[in-house]
Amino acid sequence: MKKYVYAFHEGNKEMKSLLGGKGANLAEMTKIGLPVPPGFTITTEACNKYYEDGKKIAETVVNQIFEHLYILEEKIHKKFGDTKNPLLVSVRSGAVISMPGMMDTILNLGLNDQSVMGLALVTRNERFAYDSYRRFIQMFSDVVLSIPKYKFDHILEKEKETNKIELDTDLTVNNLKSIIKAYKNLVKKETRKDFPQEPKEQLLMAVRAVFDSWNNSRAIVYRQLNDIPSHLGTAVNVQSMVFGNMGETSGTGVAFTRNPATGEKKLFGEFLMNAQGEDVVAGIRTPKPIAQLKNTMAKVYEQFVNVANLLENHYKDMQDIEFTIEKGNLYLLQTRTGKRTASAAINIAVDMVKEGIIDKETAIMRVEPTQLDQLLHPTFEEAAIKVAEKITQGLPASPGAATGRIYFSANDVVKAASEGEKAILVRLETSPEDIEGMVAAQGILTARGGMTSHAAVVARGMGKCCVAGCGEIKVDEINKVFKIDNKIFKEGDYISLDGNTGSVYAGSIPTKEPELTGNFGKLMNWADEIRTLKIRANADTPKDAYTAVKFGAEGIGLCRTEHMFFDEERIPVVRQMIIAKSLEERMTALDKLLPFQKKDFIGIFEAMGERPVTVRLLDPPLHEFLPHNDEDIKTLSEQIGVEYKVLKDTVEELKEFNPMLGHRGCRLAITYPEIYKMQVKAIIMAAIEVKKEKNIDIKPEIMVPLIGHEKELKILKELITNTANEIINESEIKIEYKIGTMIEVPRAALTADAIARHAEFFSFGTNDLTQMTYAFSRDDAGKFIGEYRKKEIFEKDPFQRLDQIGVGKLMEIAVDLGKKSRPDIKLGICGEHGGDPESINFCHKIGLNYVSCSPYRVPIARLAAARCAIQNK
Amino acid sequence: MKKYVYAFHEGNKEMKSLLGGKGANLAEMTKIGLPVPPGFTITTEACNKYYEDGKKIAETVVNQIFEHLYILEEKIHKKFGDTKNPLLVSVRSGAVISMPGMMDTILNLGLNDQSVMGLALVTRNERFAYDSYRRFIQMFSDVVLSIPKYKFDHILEKEKETNKIELDTDLTVNNLKSIIKAYKNLVKKETRKDFPQEPKEQLLMAVRAVFDSWNNSRAIVYRQLNDIPSHLGTAVNVQSMVFGNMGETSGTGVAFTRNPATGEKKLFGEFLMNAQGEDVVAGIRTPKPIAQLKNTMAKVYEQFVNVANLLENHYKDMQDIEFTIEKGNLYLLQTRTGKRTASAAINIAVDMVKEGIIDKETAIMRVEPTQLDQLLHPTFEEAAIKVAEKITQGLPASPGAATGRIYFSANDVVKAASEGEKAILVRLETSPEDIEGMVAAQGILTARGGMTSHAAVVARGMGKCCVAGCGEIKVDEINKVFKIDNKIFKEGDYISLDGNTGSVYAGSIPTKEPELTGNFGKLMNWADEIRTLKIRANADTPKDAYTAVKFGAEGIGLCRTEHMFFDEERIPVVRQMIIAKSLEERMTALDKLLPFQKKDFIGIFEAMGERPVTVRLLDPPLHEFLPHNDEDIKTLSEQIGVEYKVLKDTVEELKEFNPMLGHRGCRLAITYPEIYKMQVKAIIMAAIEVKKEKNIDIKPEIMVPLIGHEKELKILKELITNTANEIINESEIKIEYKIGTMIEVPRAALTADAIARHAEFFSFGTNDLTQMTYAFSRDDAGKFIGEYRKKEIFEKDPFQRLDQIGVGKLMEIAVDLGKKSRPDIKLGICGEHGGDPESINFCHKIGLNYVSCSPYRVPIARLAAARCAIQNK
Repeated sequence: MKKYVYAFHEGNKEMKSLLGGKGANLAEMTKIGLPVPPGFTITTEACNKYYEDGKKIAETVVNQIFEHLYILEEKIHKKFGDTKNPLLVSVRSGAVISMPGMMDTILNLGLNDQSVMGLALVTRNERFAYDSYRRFIQMFSDVVLSIPKYKFDHILEKEKETNKIELDTDLTVNNLKSIIKAYKNLVKKETRKDFPQEPKEQLLMAVRAVFDSWNNSRAIVYRQLNDIPSHLGTAVNVQSMVFGNMGETSGTGVAFTRNPATGEKKLFGEFLMNAQGEDVVAGIRTPKPIAQLKNTMAKVYEQFVNVANLLENHYKDMQDIEFTIEKGNLYLLQTRTGKRTASAAINIAVDMVKEGIIDKETAIMRVEPTQLDQLLHPTFEEAAIKVAEKITQGLPASPGAATGRIYFSANDVVKAASEGEKAILVRLETSPEDIEGMVAAQGILTARGGMTSHAAVVARGMGKCCVAGCGEIKVDEINKVFKIDNKIFKEGDYISLDGNTGSVYAGSIPTKEPELTGNFGKLMNWADEIRTLKIRANADTPKDAYTAVKFGAEGIGLCRTEHMFFDEERIPVVRQMIIAKSLEERMTALDKLLPFQKKDFIGIFEAMGERPVTVRLLDPPLHEFLPHNDEDIKTLSEQIGVEYKVLKDTVEELKEFNPMLGHRGCRLAITYPEIYKMQVKAIIMAAIEVKKEKNIDIKPEIMVPLIGHEKELKILKELITNTANEIINESEIKIEYKIGTMIEVPRAALTADAIARHAEFFSFGTNDLTQMTYAFSRDDAGKFIGEYRKKEIFEKDPFQRLDQIGVGKLMEIAVDLGKKSRPDIKLGICGEHGGDPESINFCHKIGLNYVSCSPYRVPIARLAAARCAIQNK
Repeated sequence: MKKYVYAFHEGNKEMKSLLGGKGANLAEMTKIGLPVPPGFTITTEACNKYYEDGKKIAETVVNQIFEHLYILEEKIHKKFGDTKNPLLVSVRSGAVISMPGMMDTILNLGLNDQSVMGLALVTRNERFAYDSYRRFIQMFSDVVLSIPKYKFDHILEKEKETNKIELDTDLTVNNLKSIIKAYKNLVKKETRKDFPQEPKEQLLMAVRAVFDSWNNSRAIVYRQLNDIPSHLGTAVNVQSMVFGNMGETSGTGVAFTRNPATGEKKLFGEFLMNAQGEDVVAGIRTPKPIAQLKNTMAKVYEQFVNVANLLENHYKDMQDIEFTIEKGNLYLLQTRTGKRTASAAINIAVDMVKEGIIDKETAIMRVEPTQLDQLLHPTFEEAAIKVAEKITQGLPASPGAATGRIYFSANDVVKAASEGEKAILVRLETSPEDIEGMVAAQGILTARGGMTSHAAVVARGMGKCCVAGCGEIKVDEINKVFKIDNKIFKEGDYISLDGNTGSVYAGSIPTKEPELTGNFGKLMNWADEIRTLKIRANADTPKDAYTAVKFGAEGIGLCRTEHMFFDEERIPVVRQMIIAKSLEERMTALDKLLPFQKKDFIGIFEAMGERPVTVRLLDPPLHEFLPHNDEDIKTLSEQIGVEYKVLKDTVEELKEFNPMLGHRGCRLAITYPEIYKMQVKAIIMAAIEVKKEKNIDIKPEIMVPLIGHEKELKILKELITNTANEIINESEIKIEYKIGTMIEVPRAALTADAIARHAEFFSFGTNDLTQMTYAFSRDDAGKFIGEYRKKEIFEKDPFQRLDQIGVGKLMEIAVDLGKKSRPDIKLGICGEHGGDPESINFCHKIGLNYVSCSPYRVPIARLAAARCAIQNK
């Protein structure tokens, strides 16, 4: 018979996929002798079975649960529902990959009208027992029975009002008993059933609720955001309760073994005396820094410091530890790898190498490439900060800088962001319902909650700037304003957040570019030593080229020439070229464009030095360069002296039904060879000039887009070669250049052997290749892609993450065929997937030589490339 | 050393690809002892070498030519340029596949100022000798030196005028000498060189001209039309001259061993006494029927009949024979497989099986499937013919019926046809320059020329209706009119041609459907016995379905449902469905559409009986059903009671950048499942009703379009199954149905293993698959595809003939993967390629179960399928 339930002492930390992260670590801590309240874990397989069986807990699973419950009762000498010494448990979800705040937790399960008396007896605290029972009914009803929390709050408030009580802590046992009665009536009214009194029934209902919560909409959104596959399932941890709220020698807390924002090697966390665990995480009461525990309970603090060191050394990584102190005894409720900001991740990784705890390769595997994004975005300019109006100070919960307009609900932020606005989400405190708003916001500002509050944890995970616990601001979410003293900030006003300092500023503040220095630079150098994939950037201007070099790009993988055509000075000439009715007219216009194009290339070549530069010849359909509304056509007709009607007709004539599948790319050059001729001239003349004047040996790579048939490339290669060689021969300066092609049309991939005979390199244009392979265009997919995500047809937008199964197969075919006819062919990718770590990994595996991405993603690509070199060793 | 030149006695009929068709047959006739004037053939390899060497005849080739020239001189005791007994030769092209009228011929080569006297001496006919010399200069100058013929005609006319001579035959020797002098002056003036006097130089120049003519634009057009690859090259035949113009015991002629229009077993041809070969083919003088040769020269006639029988039995096929009689001696200048109309091809093939000459398989291989097209188009209705106004009678040169407007030049026909008009090309006589006009015309009418004239031969090859040699009509090409007696027909007037009788009618005449009876039916039955590929038809209406069955379709491979939506009664409801703002509104509209759709399917199912019917669910983007201009939107808004602005906004909202890559196909059903639900309901309800009422066991095949991801099909399969089974269960009538998908998105082909898990059949939608694989849309490719054909990037439009290398590779991948996960998967094709014989052959080879094409092409597909079964045995 399959084992679906494991006692903590039966597992270990390697069993994550079966026991979930939390369960595996509870088992491990038990194994190495740390004080963990005993309990057991119901496996992820039980969860998957639950769904396979049509949302039923199988009898075999139920039996195993009760078996382990019995063992637990025996072990700690408590009994479920006992009136003298009742067993109470917590029931928590535990997914394989931690999903903070996403899953539901129930404390004090096992309480009923009988056992509450037993709890009173054993704790000698009747008030505590009835307060626990009240909390349990509320929590259970919310999570398991789906009765909204506010209905219970309402009863509580009414009781307080009637009895003129201000604080919850002032409620008497009788108050509590009457509340409990009202609670139970509410449950009866809402569910038409009594509140379940049988603890075993409570337990199974709770287990089922945890399983169900795996597929609640928040969990699904979180999984999509974090690329967690939906088939993993969650485990359920059932653990005997310890109480942090049993008076002043009890308490609860959360701590990181190092600072999760900066990486500093120093215990970082908070605690609250006389409180239950959820009070800290929820951010309702503001807790104290962990260091102060030394003053409160010196011995416990010392014990905790030792445990923290032991755990970090045991796991060889920074830990995030939850603990409870029950009447002076320390209990560990959880340890896990601590989430951290990108700069903390880098600093911890590099420090741990210095400390001899891990090696360089492990350090590289410790930093998620996508996380670097946080460090690669602009921060506030120091000069601007000096004169900025600082309006208040909060906790620096997640680093970075953000500027935007204020919005007070997740929905409003999502709406504003969808309209292209930069928005700051301002909340009293955030909750899991705010996730989508947090994703869409530039930054998050909360009035309540500490460094481990929901807002702080989630924002750090997202690499989003967050200032939390900013107590001075009075948030009025109904009227959409917040006040600081008498100053009012309305919806739509600009503010700026500094997540590194916690400062909040009025207005919007200019930002500056990030730098790759210190530990970041060191980690990047290690990555460069290890990776085999070259990293290039997509850059169309000298400015982009300089940025690319600064971030470590080893060349340009895609220099689009069409953007150069849109310059105000040039566009009239471009248009003249397009509407030309004869070769002669077209040549005249092209002659005028030549010096501009040459200048562009000189700038880029100078920026890149001897690094290779791949220039893509003109790609978009010509009508993209023409005006489309009547007024603009009229203006142009006057500008270039062409009759309005003639011009209008030309514009009409060039319109296409499916521009994506129309007269563009190399097809332009098959019909108008003189356009590419001009561009090749400009490239080669620029290379010659830079070589002559700066003594830099430029090796341009000329790339033809949209090839679908080998003969297209054969014809254009001849054109390029003839044009280039003529200029080179005249100049008497030797320029080595390469000719290659984009692989972005499925047929090109399928016939890559024939095409490689004319191409010295292939560059996969995976944007177009994805469009053609899936037969949908990016511009039009919006109408259905939402539904596709919702129905889980796509786990991820195929324009963001390479579709390895379909598009990837075409790439593999092209690589195989291309190498067959030209073994030394250079292979790269220049679609936007070139900056996505998982797609980079695929490129590495199929044997590409380089990836090319936007300049800001170059460090991400460098790190990702190093990680795949390690993983695929 | 490679052999580039073969004497006739060195070759045989199997050496076609080396010696060309003409050369191989001259060799064969020599071999079997027939009277062939000796000569030699320069191979196609020499032609290819000529192009490889940059249009130079290699020295080794030149040497071999002169060697064989020497052998020829020795053999027939004549010498090149001799003043007593000069060798004269003809130089003719000879491609592997016959290309009538396309290549150039030179007669009497070897004549110069000296040898002309030798010719006079040996023939004892000074006038004949100088006339031959005159003709030679003119022909050589035209073909080799590119001096326009009319300049020579001008000299000739002037000489006649000056000397008041009416007929060419009345020119004296002195006249001829003075013409020759003027001709030579003209050559000197035009080329700045003397007319070449050295016969060997003449020979090499002529050979080069033949090679060059392989790539003249007419030849290229012909090759494209007839799918002849351009790498084949042409051979050159050099043959000693015999003269049909040496008086009344000399003559020349052309004859077919059977009637090439009807297939009747009877010598069919023409001859002219005292004429050279080109006089017959050119159609300038009207020749006599071959049967009359019996009266003119009984013995020669008898000899010719014997030769004709011998050749037909030798080649086991109908022969097209050219002969010359020189002073009572019969010489054979050419034999080749005779071109024939489709009905002649069928009759000859079936007759020859009856005669025991060939077997059934050979008979099937003798009829080109595409040729059947001629028989599958409507002919005139007999009733209409009876009352039609017959205006004149010509020769029934190529069968079929044609109605259209009169045009007098190839260009005008091409223009009219491109505007969608039906055009009849009316010419005095046609010439190779008219080819493109002949392609575009419905039919051809000529005033001059016989059954073997250019117009007749080419029209039969094309399967185009042609009435030739219609002497009564007076064509005035300048003023664009023709007259019959006093009746005038202007450009743009309608006439009708009957190619089977040669009758010409005024006005346009209604036509009737063809039938598959007699020999045609017999051949089709043989084809059905042999083929393994099933043939289905694409049919959307009961009418189409009946036609399909009549032509032998074994099912419907593609029944498009969207055309049903455009019906006048339905389109308002369809539009209501589209603009519905809620599911409820949409359902109301769909409920109204259901009975219509059900009725459609009942009609089609009844027509098809128990043959399988594949119904494709809705495919096009919804905006195709909406009006697009403001006025139509206004009308619709009144019709359906929706505010104009709302409707206009909906139309705008639904517009797409690239509709081909947009919200269509199965994507519609992912977002609006209720549309497919309604369609499935209609299909199943129709099947039940027909089964119940007519006791026909309907097995519908439900096909989902545009699948790109297996999950799309998984979701929709569930929807279809649930919907269908619910109705079937309710009705208690068992309906077996299949669910499958189009493979028309590259990704579907690449992931066919996953998709096949949910699909019982695949149908390749090669129209879309070609668009996606090549990344160009049919609608937009027009702007560059002409240039692509011209530059020979495409040998054939990939929308007409399947691109086996690219699109075909995707199909092979899909077949392999599909069979891997479902070995018994049914595979078909429903793109337009399903009616193209070469594409059908490919489908057979990769293992498809059926092809589906338009009803009218079903017999073509049946024959093509039989041919590939034979070829791939």
